[in-house]
Amino acid sequence: MQELAIEVAGRSYPILIGDKLLDDAAVLERCVAARDVLVVTDETVAPLYLERVLRGLAGRRTASIALPAGEQHKTLAGVAPVFDALVAARLNRDACIVALGGGVVGDMAGFAAACYQRGIDCVQVPTTLLAQVDSSVGGKTGVNHPGGKNLIGAFHQPRAVIADTATLQTLPARELRAGLAEVIKYGLLGDLGFLVWIEQNLDSLLALDSRALAAAIRRSCAAKARIVVADERELGQRALLNLGHTFAHAIETATGYDTWLHGEAVGVGMLVAADMSARVGWLARPDVQRVRTLLARSGLPVEAPKIGADRARKLIGIDKKVRDGRLRLVLLRNLGDALVTDDYPADALNATLSAHFDGAGT
Amino acid sequence: MQELAIEVAGRSYPILIGDKLLDDAAVLERCVAARDVLVVTDETVAPLYLERVLRGLAGRRTASIALPAGEQHKTLAGVAPVFDALVAARLNRDACIVALGGGVVGDMAGFAAACYQRGIDCVQVPTTLLAQVDSSVGGKTGVNHPGGKNLIGAFHQPRAVIADTATLQTLPARELRAGLAEVIKYGLLGDLGFLVWIEQNLDSLLALDSRALAAAIRRSCAAKARIVVADERELGQRALLNLGHTFAHAIETATGYDTWLHGEAVGVGMLVAADMSARVGWLARPDVQRVRTLLARSGLPVEAPKIGADRARKLIGIDKKVRDGRLRLVLLRNLGDALVTDDYPADALNATLSAHFDGAGT
Repeated sequence: MQELAIEVAGRSYPILIGDKLLDDAAVLERCVAARDVLVVTDETVAPLYLERVLRGLAGRRTASIALPAGEQHKTLAGVAPVFDALVAARLNRDACIVALGGGVVGDMAGFAAACYQRGIDCVQVPTTLLAQVDSSVGGKTGVNHPGGKNLIGAFHQPRAVIADTATLQTLPARELRAGLAEVIKYGLLGDLGFLVWIEQNLDSLLALDSRALAAAIRRSCAAKARIVVADERELGQRALLNLGHTFAHAIETATGYDTWLHGEAVGVGMLVAADMSARVGWLARPDVQRVRTLLARSGLPVEAPKIGADRARKLIGIDKKVRDGRLRLVLLRNLGDALVTDDYPADALNATLSAHFDGAGT
Repeated sequence: MQELAIEVAGRSYPILIGDKLLDDAAVLERCVAARDVLVVTDETVAPLYLERVLRGLAGRRTASIALPAGEQHKTLAGVAPVFDALVAARLNRDACIVALGGGVVGDMAGFAAACYQRGIDCVQVPTTLLAQVDSSVGGKTGVNHPGGKNLIGAFHQPRAVIADTATLQTLPARELRAGLAEVIKYGLLGDLGFLVWIEQNLDSLLALDSRALAAAIRRSCAAKARIVVADERELGQRALLNLGHTFAHAIETATGYDTWLHGEAVGVGMLVAADMSARVGWLARPDVQRVRTLLARSGLPVEAPKIGADRARKLIGIDKKVRDGRLRLVLLRNLGDALVTDDYPADALNATLSAHFDGAGT
C-alpha cells in the first residue's frame, strides 16, 4: 500500500493507494471515524463493490443509496435523493458519507457532504482511474447546470481517500484510457521525468499492473497536491491543471457530453494545446509528435471532432476561464513545463482551431 | 449611520446600519465591488425596494430575480431559479449577489452565492428586523428539507451587510415584534445591561424610532459577533445562540411552520427555557416573570401552543442539537447569563414540558 498525506487548510488527510484495499477491513476502519455512515454509490458500481464496503463498515450504523449512473444525473435535482437518504437515516453532524464510485458519484456525494447540516465528513472511494487521480486532491465537489459543467458546487476536503487499484479490473477499457489522459497531463504540465516514466510503463498500466497503477496514481496525486498547495499561496498555479481542458470543454459541449469521455476530450485538448504551443514557437515539433504518439499508444483519440473553428472559438469564449474578456490558455513552454498565458498572437489560436476543428488535420 | 466591523476567518466585513441607507448611492457603491450583479429578492420586497437598489447600482451590469415569498419556497428546488438567473446573465466568478429581503431571501441567495462556481461575493441587504439582527453575522446560509429546517446549506460570509432601518417602516407589525424576540435574546443570554436598555427603550423600538432601532441592531450584531468569534476558538459558545430555539423548534414543527413566526416561537421558547431554569433552581421566579412581561409588552405571545408534552418531547428529541443521545439545552443561570448544559434533572424538563405544552399553564 502506498500512502500520501495531503496537507490542506491546516489539516491533513491520507490518500491510501493499493491493491485490494476494500478487502482490508483495517483500511475502512482507519479512514471512517464516524459511527453513522451513508454510502453513496451508483447503479453500476453498487453490484460490484457495495457489499464489500458495507462489510468493511460492520459494527457501524450504515445506510446506502445507489444513484442512477451517468453524468446526465449530476444535477442539483439529482443530488436531492442523497439529502433524502441522509434525513431518512436520521444522520446528524457526526455522520460520514462514503462516496463509492467514479467522478460523478464523488462530486455529487462530496457536494451533499459539504451541504448537509453545512458540512459533514466525506471519505472518497474512487473506483475509476480518472477519479483516483483527479478527484482525490483539491476538494472540488459539485453538480452541472444546463449552462455549464460544475457551475454549482463547494470546496469540501475529504477525510480520507481510498484508491483501490483492484477496482480498475472492472472498469471498461475505454474509461481506463480516459483516466490515463489525466495521468499524462501531470507529466506534461510539470514533470518530464514522470512523462518519461509513463512512456516506459505504459504497457504495464494498460495491462492493469497494480504496482504500476499505484505508482502512477501516487505521482499524479502528489503533482496535483503540489499545485493546489502552491495555489493557496495565490500564485495562480491551479489553472495549470486545466491543461487541455479549454479545448476539451469545446469538444464536450459541441458533442453533448455523451459522445466523448472527459478524459478523451482532455487528451485531444492537450494535443491541441501542444500544437498551439509549437505554433507560438515554444514547443518543438517533434515534441508535439511525442505527445500524439503517447496518446495514441494509450488508445486515446488524437483527432478532434470537426465541429468547425468558429463554433470552437465561440465555445471556448464562454468558458469560465475567461477573465476580463481575454482568454487565458494553458500552453507548454516545453514538455513538462506548462504556463498560463493570454499573451499569444491571435493568429496562432485561429490557426490552431482551424487545423484541428475545421478538418485540415494537424 | 452606525458601522460595525465583523472579523471572520482572517478578513473583515462591515455592517452598515442606519436610516435610508438604500437612498444613499455611496453606500451601495462602497459595498458592491463587482461590476456584474444579480439582485435576488422576493415578490413582496421587489415592488418596495428593488428599483431603489438597482438605481444605487447604476453603472454596473445588473440583473434581478424575485422569488416567490415565504419559507415554504426555501427549498433546494426553490434555489434553482437563482442559479438559472446567474447563468442566464452569464455571471462569472467576479460577480456579486445582492440579497434584498428577509431571512428567507438572505438564506437562499447566500446559499446560491456559496455554491455558484464554488463561491461568489454576496452583499446582504436585510429588510426585516429578524434578518438585520440574526442573519448579518455568522455566515449561515441554506435551505430547508422536509425532514428539517436548514438541513442543506453552507457557511458563506457576506462581503458587506446593509441594514436600512427605513425598510422596517413597511414591515408588518407582527414581523417587527418577532424580530424583537431575537433582540431580547441577546440581552437575555449575555448582557443584562442590554436587557435593561431594551426594557427602557421598548416603546421607541415599537414606534420604529430609527435611532433606537439602529442601536438595538448594532448591539445585537455585536453580541452575536462576540459569540461567533469565541466559537471559532472552539469554546462551543455558538450554541448559546440557540436560547429558546429547541422549544421553538418543537412549536414550529408541531404547528407546521405557518402558524407561528420563527421569532414568536423563539420568544415563547425563551420563556420556557427561563421557566425551566427556575425549576432547576438557577433563575429566580421574579426574573421569569420579568421575561414574560418584556415579551408581552413587545406584543409577543407568551403561551405555548398546547401540542402535548409527549409530542414536544419527541420533537425536541430529533433536533440537531442532540449529541450522543443526551439533550443539551440552553438555560439561564441568571438574566444576562446563559449556559449550555445537559446536566439537569430529567424531572425538571418533564415538568417544564407539561406546564407549557399540556395546558397546565406556567
